[in-house]
Amino acid sequence: MQKASKIILGIDPGTIVMGYGIIAIKGNAMTLVEMDVLKLPAKADAYEKLEKIHARVNTLIKTHKPDCFAIEAPFFGKNVQSMLKLGRAQGVAIAAAIQAGLAVHEYSPKKIKQSITGNGNAGKEQVMKMLQHLLRFDQGPAYMDASDAVAVAVCHHFQQGSLPVTKGRQAKPLSDWKTFVARNPARVK
Amino acid sequence: MQKASKIILGIDPGTIVMGYGIIAIKGNAMTLVEMDVLKLPAKADAYEKLEKIHARVNTLIKTHKPDCFAIEAPFFGKNVQSMLKLGRAQGVAIAAAIQAGLAVHEYSPKKIKQSITGNGNAGKEQVMKMLQHLLRFDQGPAYMDASDAVAVAVCHHFQQGSLPVTKGRQAKPLSDWKTFVARNPARVK
Repeated sequence: MQKASKIILGIDPGTIVMGYGIIAIKGNAMTLVEMDVLKLPAKADAYEKLEKIHARVNTLIKTHKPDCFAIEAPFFGKNVQSMLKLGRAQGVAIAAAIQAGLAVHEYSPKKIKQSITGNGNAGKEQVMKMLQHLLRFDQGPAYMDASDAVAVAVCHHFQQGSLPVTKGRQAKPLSDWKTFVARNPARVK
Repeated sequence: MQKASKIILGIDPGTIVMGYGIIAIKGNAMTLVEMDVLKLPAKADAYEKLEKIHARVNTLIKTHKPDCFAIEAPFFGKNVQSMLKLGRAQGVAIAAAIQAGLAVHEYSPKKIKQSITGNGNAGKEQVMKMLQHLLRFDQGPAYMDASDAVAVAVCHHFQQGSLPVTKGRQAKPLSDWKTFVARNPARVK
């Protein structure tokens, strides 16, 4: 069961760029409130970057008063050093959510793709097209990280069980989004 | 140059136990204010643990009003999964410091051993003995993580250049702490 109105903040934290997206759910309508990136200055030291991430997430929470916080969280990366840095970036973002009393939900990239396109191995283009359909925006954002953040917010919404397809997770992965759209008209109306 | 009085909070974050230590510096005197551990319940989910870390660091900052925040930060670990978890634990602790306007300083385990015993490869016992000398406590803490946190606080103090040895970082590593004590009476008086 779902509140009549809900705001979801999606974050895709990174050490070079942090993407964020805010969506609003009212009844069955899902609208895009904001999608953007925070660019982390290459010359800044590690703590300046963490401070900027923390400050931006705090500001987003204060501005949009989200009900939920969802984060894209890959569990495997190239090397231990980059994973430590990624963990810190996630940590300061999560701390801002915790501080605001928000529950934190995380989804792997595969889960997000699966949830949005029906195919855990979907390409970025495919995810983007589906997001544009769902949220009625035409232009792709300048940074893929911003749409990735929107994607995790949408994924969280779908995982809450408000739309039919979330009950069909055991269904076979669909090979393309057109098939998916055809099978799930509620998602793209 | 140093303020007449300074409080340093040292943190050794982990995903099972977080150690913390608070030391006070007044003139040339260094005293132990608190050293303890936060045990993270094994059954708690990852976010509950992060929340507990964040809350405890917040409380420590509010209670002791430290001037500096120092963290033990290994840069290499066993695997990417554990480093991501460690990064998150560090991240929420760092966020609490950032939120309070504290600068964050980090030191590798090797640097901490080097700074305290003069030997970057010193054993834990050797570090503990030196800490007991410096801070005049007899009993080892129940958890090594607590003394590790005190060690990073002491290391940060020494790195501020207030004691002779910090100017002698190029000096040859000393093979044992007795020799070190003999050469650095100011540290153990």
